[in-house]
Amino acid sequence: MDHERFGKAGFAAFLLAQVGAHAAKRFGEELAPLKLSPPHAGILRVLAGASGLSQRELGARLGIHPSRLVAIVDEMEALGLVKREANSDDRRQYALVLTARGREALGEIGMVGRRHNETLLRALSEEERGVLAGLLQKIATDQGLRPGVHPGYAGLGRPGRAEG
Amino acid sequence: MDHERFGKAGFAAFLLAQVGAHAAKRFGEELAPLKLSPPHAGILRVLAGASGLSQRELGARLGIHPSRLVAIVDEMEALGLVKREANSDDRRQYALVLTARGREALGEIGMVGRRHNETLLRALSEEERGVLAGLLQKIATDQGLRPGVHPGYAGLGRPGRAEG
Repeated sequence: MDHERFGKAGFAAFLLAQVGAHAAKRFGEELAPLKLSPPHAGILRVLAGASGLSQRELGARLGIHPSRLVAIVDEMEALGLVKREANSDDRRQYALVLTARGREALGEIGMVGRRHNETLLRALSEEERGVLAGLLQKIATDQGLRPGVHPGYAGLGRPGRAEG
Repeated sequence: MDHERFGKAGFAAFLLAQVGAHAAKRFGEELAPLKLSPPHAGILRVLAGASGLSQRELGARLGIHPSRLVAIVDEMEALGLVKREANSDDRRQYALVLTARGREALGEIGMVGRRHNETLLRALSEEERGVLAGLLQKIATDQGLRPGVHPGYAGLGRPGRAEG
């Protein structure tokens, strides 16, 4: 119906939201058996590349509200994925580091991500996947989206601009 | 980071979820000044094509949980967008119909949708928009997504398969 109303190209925004929500939901479902959520996955990825980040820096980087981030990091500490270490430069801030279990989980998330990608895009050829990624990257850059910031945070962020 | 890990094509699923969440959020923000939400927009669209649908039929078509749908239809009735009419075939079910204000809102939503599409896809040429829509449609069909069912319902649906 929208297809008819907007024409093929005009329908792209709607399809993007529809397929994107499906992708995010499926990724969350595929992580669930590991007792992990998309925010956990995103935080592990960031810390793998920037060990020792403070909670404040992590929140700013991911656009997650500080109070919500404290709860997620508490969860992750209880799961043994990260630990808080006293920061020698500023004792008021804790440095967040991955544990061995956190690094192991990151490997599992990578496998889930590759399987998820394969299932989601199975209707497309390798070439079409490349074209799709290229077009999406153009939109992401134009819209000012941060590379690698997972939309699982969108519902957790500051009101108004969670992932932008 | 994910880009490096998965390669360009392998990054598509992540980008899809990221750009899709951004698209859905922006559409919601653009509807807000009209005091409308994406579920309102979706319900108005469905009723425009199938006036007199019962609430049960509407919920089944959109994948919205019945109890949540009652609350949304209450809101929409209070806003003067729809009305419940006694169904002559089955008095236990109300038929939902658009009001004149509902039809007017639908026109406004169409304008918001076109503007939203234009803003979201401004980095792409007309041809690229067509390619993107074609690739997304292939994925949507393969993944069994219902045409025209807006992801705004995803958070409202039955546990497990809201929009699928």
